[in-house]
Amino acid sequence: MSERAEARPLAIFCGGGGFPVEVVRAAQANGRAPFVVGVIGSCDSAIEAFPHVWVHIGQVGKIFAALKDRAIVDVAFVGALTRPEFADLRFDWGAVKRAPELAQLFRGGDNRLLVGVAGIFEREGFRVVGVHEIAPQLLAPAGPIGARAASPDAAADARVGAALLAALSPFDVGQGVVVANARVIAIEAAEGTDAMLARVADLRASRRLRFQGPAGVFVKAPKRDQDLRLDMPAVGVKTIEAARRAQLRGVALAAGQVLVADRQAFSRAADEAGLFVVGFAP
Amino acid sequence: MSERAEARPLAIFCGGGGFPVEVVRAAQANGRAPFVVGVIGSCDSAIEAFPHVWVHIGQVGKIFAALKDRAIVDVAFVGALTRPEFADLRFDWGAVKRAPELAQLFRGGDNRLLVGVAGIFEREGFRVVGVHEIAPQLLAPAGPIGARAASPDAAADARVGAALLAALSPFDVGQGVVVANARVIAIEAAEGTDAMLARVADLRASRRLRFQGPAGVFVKAPKRDQDLRLDMPAVGVKTIEAARRAQLRGVALAAGQVLVADRQAFSRAADEAGLFVVGFAP
Repeated sequence: MSERAEARPLAIFCGGGGFPVEVVRAAQANGRAPFVVGVIGSCDSAIEAFPHVWVHIGQVGKIFAALKDRAIVDVAFVGALTRPEFADLRFDWGAVKRAPELAQLFRGGDNRLLVGVAGIFEREGFRVVGVHEIAPQLLAPAGPIGARAASPDAAADARVGAALLAALSPFDVGQGVVVANARVIAIEAAEGTDAMLARVADLRASRRLRFQGPAGVFVKAPKRDQDLRLDMPAVGVKTIEAARRAQLRGVALAAGQVLVADRQAFSRAADEAGLFVVGFAP
Repeated sequence: MSERAEARPLAIFCGGGGFPVEVVRAAQANGRAPFVVGVIGSCDSAIEAFPHVWVHIGQVGKIFAALKDRAIVDVAFVGALTRPEFADLRFDWGAVKRAPELAQLFRGGDNRLLVGVAGIFEREGFRVVGVHEIAPQLLAPAGPIGARAASPDAAADARVGAALLAALSPFDVGQGVVVANARVIAIEAAEGTDAMLARVADLRASRRLRFQGPAGVFVKAPKRDQDLRLDMPAVGVKTIEAARRAQLRGVALAAGQVLVADRQAFSRAADEAGLFVVGFAP
């Protein structure tokens, strides 16, 4: 529908993973005219099917110019970025002017970094929008996704995990946790979800965790005060694969606050792996 | 001093690691007459230098009988145990009588399990004592251990880590965390300290964590409401080695609440690795 005259333009910064393109498509289906800003080294080349530009993260001047040339006001950020170190940014003049401000952002957690980046865009006159605004159909619904339901025990584990993630929120860390039989097994920090679930798989395989059969729930939720326009947590088929290898019983997602990439394939993979997936009211 | 007539007997349950023997020696130096209960499969054979008995964890009847035969009232638990699964315990009749109670203890975190075990001993008339009571000289002092001091930045990271561990306390998890430049890098759960520090080393080596030079502090503290008579956190030369491989700047320990095994070698290893170690007021 990008040919509709009334379609409002929208810049979508795309990092790694498959779902940025899905977000671009969904936004287009919702009547927007997407312009993709592909982050070199992170973003898939599939974005080239849309109007786009490739940039390094540090090319702040080039990015602002490209957006202003197209009279774009709304900007969204989707997909994983390898957290850059300040010293690795390839600064253009637009970034150099803001260097002291940018340097400050690199002291602290990811949320602080992203909120700071969003602030720089907003002070430049842009409006930062979230996936929940441009592609709400991609978020986890409340209730079961797929064929299986959570047992009362597993639901209790999910509640422990959700409470733990809430307690960690002030520390700008922790979007994922695994709880099994009321015991906290693994907490995600800089290693990311995939590595955390691989760790649980290793603990099971090495018999350091000696459960009989499937055990445990992977709980994913944003930080309580996290700006959902930025860095919304996301799951996909790979998450199901990792949960299966970790011999979990299921996955619990904060409804309306976690992106589910390729929902149909995700749901089918969960069913085939014998895992429940449930969206809980955050 | 075990030959002194007035030396009070004391049973010390010894799990894995080198420091249980150190605790036995320190208790003896403090005027106690130790009787060592070695857990088969965990405890070092060095305990055979002391009056001792070897047991499986499930041999509750044998353990109680051995202690009562020697008129022992005080019991201490030291060293790491591989957390057993209920189904793996080798039950004798003394355990079978208490099986429903024992089974309940296996639902939840390690602290719940240990508190439950201590409760069983106490109801049998024993008094559970902690390392801080029988060998206080082995605990981390307040202030620097070794030659180096923490920079203000590193001290700030240590405070963030201590606050995070306090926030996790209600969940019966988390005695260790790594914080670097105000960012939470890794949180310990079922994998244990060594695996958590190895993970940080991997994140540095793979450049997923892209700091320049040494960065970060490992913070270790007991859970806020943890019974220190049971499962007191412990560090040793291996901790320093792991912290060095993780390219940290130092280690912060809750003073009076963390055991430091082989203090002299520990302090020397920290100096050689260029790491600070500091005890903070918990």
